[in-house]
Amino acid sequence: MIINLYSENAKYHTVIKRGLLNHLNNYLNFSKKILLVVDKNIRSTFYNKFFKDDTIFKVTATEKNKTIEIVMEIIKILTTNKFSRDDYIVSLGGGITSDIVGFAASIYKRGMKWISIPTTTLAMIDASVGGKTAVNYQNIKNQIGNFYFPEKVLIDINVLKTLDERNFNNGLCEAVKMGITLDKSILDLMIDPHKNLAKIIEKSIKAKNRIVKLDMKDHNARHVLNYGHTIGHAIEMIDDNLLHGEAVLIGMYYLSTPKIKQIIKSYIEKFGVVDRCYEFDQLIPYLLQDKKIEENKFKLVKVNDIHDYTINDMNLADLKMIYERR
Amino acid sequence: MIINLYSENAKYHTVIKRGLLNHLNNYLNFSKKILLVVDKNIRSTFYNKFFKDDTIFKVTATEKNKTIEIVMEIIKILTTNKFSRDDYIVSLGGGITSDIVGFAASIYKRGMKWISIPTTTLAMIDASVGGKTAVNYQNIKNQIGNFYFPEKVLIDINVLKTLDERNFNNGLCEAVKMGITLDKSILDLMIDPHKNLAKIIEKSIKAKNRIVKLDMKDHNARHVLNYGHTIGHAIEMIDDNLLHGEAVLIGMYYLSTPKIKQIIKSYIEKFGVVDRCYEFDQLIPYLLQDKKIEENKFKLVKVNDIHDYTINDMNLADLKMIYERR
Repeated sequence: MIINLYSENAKYHTVIKRGLLNHLNNYLNFSKKILLVVDKNIRSTFYNKFFKDDTIFKVTATEKNKTIEIVMEIIKILTTNKFSRDDYIVSLGGGITSDIVGFAASIYKRGMKWISIPTTTLAMIDASVGGKTAVNYQNIKNQIGNFYFPEKVLIDINVLKTLDERNFNNGLCEAVKMGITLDKSILDLMIDPHKNLAKIIEKSIKAKNRIVKLDMKDHNARHVLNYGHTIGHAIEMIDDNLLHGEAVLIGMYYLSTPKIKQIIKSYIEKFGVVDRCYEFDQLIPYLLQDKKIEENKFKLVKVNDIHDYTINDMNLADLKMIYERR
Repeated sequence: MIINLYSENAKYHTVIKRGLLNHLNNYLNFSKKILLVVDKNIRSTFYNKFFKDDTIFKVTATEKNKTIEIVMEIIKILTTNKFSRDDYIVSLGGGITSDIVGFAASIYKRGMKWISIPTTTLAMIDASVGGKTAVNYQNIKNQIGNFYFPEKVLIDINVLKTLDERNFNNGLCEAVKMGITLDKSILDLMIDPHKNLAKIIEKSIKAKNRIVKLDMKDHNARHVLNYGHTIGHAIEMIDDNLLHGEAVLIGMYYLSTPKIKQIIKSYIEKFGVVDRCYEFDQLIPYLLQDKKIEENKFKLVKVNDIHDYTINDMNLADLKMIYERR
């Protein structure tokens, strides 16, 4: 299955195909220089058929390591090996890996070619669309970054077999977000996510792509994709045990009506997500670093019902009240 | 005079007005947070009426200091002072200052608002249009950067009174490039550049803008703007005494027919530019870092006559022959 995706300049597309990683030669142009940047936890059997050791850079893909320093390490390798902007960098890993590699690709010689191969449900559903790249800075998530698009996104669902259940569910949290706000048929598929995975990924990508097309630079329509993310990012920065999707699911909970809270609660339980109910004051420093603050107001997505949401300007006191209401 | 300029997303414009710096409150929104990043050599009388000390960051604007480290210093200041992406950064200086500030603005929270105030003829004529931002890396010019546009460009010709003759002429070299390739009326104005300066700047900006509109990302039409830059960049990296425009003028000379060489030679003499005639072998390492290399071929602009140029794929041996012919 091929889905055409929107970007500001050139169109790009994603290919979803089981076993695709065994036939990478059909998707990558090995007559060009290629640097593979791979999460060091990815089994080498997924890529060692096509990449020699000296064309591979392994990264420790943690939020702590998602820094400008690792981006500069990649740029050093590209520079030392005289990569042109016409050569390729390939990311193989989850959202952290693609955030780092996408950012490096975007600034090397003002932009080189990049192919993204996500290996987690979260990266397949979320990071694969919309062009956001970033690294963290001074404990602020995604403080440095930009918008940059890969030439294509290659999705091989077979790679998820090596993902543990918790990380598998982590990506489904973003699919729940898409289901509640944009395409409720995703929620129906969620009854058996393992069986329906390809469909869930496809529908989530298409829903996100429709929104990105309306507002690529995140100034109005795209805000809906941030549902749960303002509180979510803050909790995620405090709580090292929480995965991104899990934190977003918790963040969504607070900004919903009782009916939607019930639905989200069922997923919180199903996925075994633990909300440690931090004091609001602990969240404040991280909340204030949110990118969607204008004139001291947060832009927050509140969900009233399925497919029924509003984007509200809210100050810190409003948010505190909502958070403490639980 | 207001000139509307092209960018990929939003339109922006440049204002050319003598004495504009005395009325900055008409052009900047001082109800927002503003960080002024200024070349430390700029006289404080140009800005201290509007900016308090704690909103000013002074930079040493040299090629050597045009690094990722100084960009990170700026990002640190923005982060510490909790700037939102809706607040402003203002660059006041030459092309180095705007290259650094534009790049910092482009990656802070995935892009914040930026207003550019060029203070050299070179920056007014060249860096003010086209959205290229960059820093150097490992002795390679503009190795790291991207495309990002200011909200507006403010040009006050009065500021040039403090520029010495050599730096004044440095910018005119790029105007000569525009004159030869795109608008020969610029060459007529060059008979008295001090008198005709506003017109020269206006016409150069308009000519460059027309080309950028055709090919923002530098893949085909925009190559003409690189006339002289492949050899120019290499000579500039070797020869610390040479200014950017001077190096480009020398680079243009080599890639021209005898008729055009005569014209360029007259400017080389008029501006007192010294070509130290480096051996071609010395240039090679820098030439190979050119961004316009594809499949081991340079994309080079050769000028046959006024307004008559071709863009050629050339290998290193071809370029050597041309260079050594003199």
